[in-house]
Amino acid sequence: MAARSQEKTNKRNTEDISLKIKALGEKLISQIEAMDNPHLDIPIRGSANVHFDESQQKIILGDKMAKRSLFNVAHARRFMQTMLVASYVQKDLLANELTATLRDLYYAKKHTIEGTKEDTIDEQKESDLAIVDFEVALETFRERLNLRAEPKGRMAGNMTVEDRVRDKVDLIDLSKMGSGGWSVPSIVEQINFKKVDVDYVLVAEKNAIFDRLNEDKFWQKNNSLIMTTAGQAARGARRFLQRLSTELKLPIYILTDADPYGWYIYSTMKYGSMALAHESERLGCREAKFLGMSISDIEHYDLKAVTIKAKEVDIKRAQEMKSYEWFKYKEWQTEINKFLDLKIKAEIQSLSSKNLQYISNTYLPEKIKNQDFLP
Amino acid sequence: MAARSQEKTNKRNTEDISLKIKALGEKLISQIEAMDNPHLDIPIRGSANVHFDESQQKIILGDKMAKRSLFNVAHARRFMQTMLVASYVQKDLLANELTATLRDLYYAKKHTIEGTKEDTIDEQKESDLAIVDFEVALETFRERLNLRAEPKGRMAGNMTVEDRVRDKVDLIDLSKMGSGGWSVPSIVEQINFKKVDVDYVLVAEKNAIFDRLNEDKFWQKNNSLIMTTAGQAARGARRFLQRLSTELKLPIYILTDADPYGWYIYSTMKYGSMALAHESERLGCREAKFLGMSISDIEHYDLKAVTIKAKEVDIKRAQEMKSYEWFKYKEWQTEINKFLDLKIKAEIQSLSSKNLQYISNTYLPEKIKNQDFLP
Repeated sequence: MAARSQEKTNKRNTEDISLKIKALGEKLISQIEAMDNPHLDIPIRGSANVHFDESQQKIILGDKMAKRSLFNVAHARRFMQTMLVASYVQKDLLANELTATLRDLYYAKKHTIEGTKEDTIDEQKESDLAIVDFEVALETFRERLNLRAEPKGRMAGNMTVEDRVRDKVDLIDLSKMGSGGWSVPSIVEQINFKKVDVDYVLVAEKNAIFDRLNEDKFWQKNNSLIMTTAGQAARGARRFLQRLSTELKLPIYILTDADPYGWYIYSTMKYGSMALAHESERLGCREAKFLGMSISDIEHYDLKAVTIKAKEVDIKRAQEMKSYEWFKYKEWQTEINKFLDLKIKAEIQSLSSKNLQYISNTYLPEKIKNQDFLP
Repeated sequence: MAARSQEKTNKRNTEDISLKIKALGEKLISQIEAMDNPHLDIPIRGSANVHFDESQQKIILGDKMAKRSLFNVAHARRFMQTMLVASYVQKDLLANELTATLRDLYYAKKHTIEGTKEDTIDEQKESDLAIVDFEVALETFRERLNLRAEPKGRMAGNMTVEDRVRDKVDLIDLSKMGSGGWSVPSIVEQINFKKVDVDYVLVAEKNAIFDRLNEDKFWQKNNSLIMTTAGQAARGARRFLQRLSTELKLPIYILTDADPYGWYIYSTMKYGSMALAHESERLGCREAKFLGMSISDIEHYDLKAVTIKAKEVDIKRAQEMKSYEWFKYKEWQTEINKFLDLKIKAEIQSLSSKNLQYISNTYLPEKIKNQDFLP
């Protein structure tokens, strides 16, 4: 991996965003000068404009656009708030090479008209919506606007990455992270992959599994990178996995509990989600594979005694998911039917009933050797 | 800090626990051989036996003990489960130098009588209670039994630690963790402090504050270690802070939102909690100080416009806390009264309304310079 060219790419990206923001501003000014109603063209994000794209294998936004105008009673407030977002991103963040959270932005722009008690932003959800408007209008995503989300997840493995905090550059050897692991940052655009000696990436939904694999030196013995998302994957973890998949062509294997919530965690990492359809392009990881735990594993690995009875809500969820286009694969239909038939679920940790290291010494090596995955 | 002597201490601890378990087992055997009813003496954990110890400045268990006997219909099942815990800890974990979660233990000992459908442990809460019985009976805490909890928290700063995963020893330079930070492990007993060039430890309740301080290179400029607990502090973070305070004599400053929930997060780190009174001795950090945000800060830093109206539940909580012995300090009574009077709360991030780096460049340096803390 050529680090220098990556650095250039990162630098160029920041510049591009600033140029895009300036271009947007100039367009608005010329609308004003032409005595036109200033407006933004923004893709509609409602379910009517969200669909699963077969060729891209992603849940994405369609072509339907909406105009957001200043001189429209229903739009004026949001238009103003979107301008506050634009100003904050350009002048406070990008110009100073600083990052902030959505909450920082909210506090900074909440009360901008001095001498009045009127707030320009009442609730954070207003500025959050204005931020999404702004990112889709610019055809980018919030990390490129230097907006951070809550970070979550840890990793360890045979890889060295270079991370940058403003002008401070750190070389981080992920094979020397002890029992803690390196925390996955919220923004991963600036990370460069340096030494990479990894055959695949194994992503566990749970911290407990990460700790088990790390203690068993799974990533050393199996030449891999391990990551936990600690539940539903955060944006930083999703983007990092996408980069590992597209830039380094590393296979991504995902390990969740055998239940509809586990499938949902998997499908969000792979295809994106309805709610964040405008982000799937940057956050989805279409080459990811579902390693397990599968319902068939319960029988194959003799785990019947340590399964859990499915709840009503699990069954309803599974029935819904069966109809999703991205679960239409024959293998997934069989999996979901098996679940609906047996009405049981199983946690990855139920493998501990065999012995603590069974997952590292038997289950995972077998599944990976046999490429026993769901698509 | 002499690393070698610390290593010896760690090694000795493991051996001590094994010896303690063996001694417990031998005591039970001699009870059986004497035709006595086999029993364990276990400190009572109910509120009647929990109190605040002035001299230790900790919420601790009193002297009241209960007998748990095998030949007692009300005790037999729990006695059996406590023996399952003892066996798992000794034979599966300590003997193999492995760690496990409470859930692993539950799965391993759930179904131990072959050829029957009867479970030895039905629900995890049963084995969790048996684990607490076992740790208090041994006068130790679960991390010494190689039982892991959910890890949470990140850190960075001018310190190098040595962490060990079985025979693999890693030297971790916390000043080179990029934007991610090092994840605080669940068990921190094995960690040795190596290079320490730190004047104090700053603990932020929120990830967002950690990211802000890290980006502003606060720990470099102010020669410190920064940590986030990402909400209520996990056991690993609490124990690590205690070790930093008692072994390295580092001042610990805690930064939470200005509201009763923030005070509660602080008091748990400092004094322990009612629910885990049996653990305060190992998890409490009595020298910790509350840096802020305080209700007085709202006025002093002119943050009135970005405060939040207190909810009914906040006010009820504050009234309760006012009567807690560990909030009897004059300064805390004034603080709580001020809150009850103004009925507003403020988040640390509200400082972003001034400017993004105000917290790093002005607020924290001022508070620390003036030692403007609550006890």
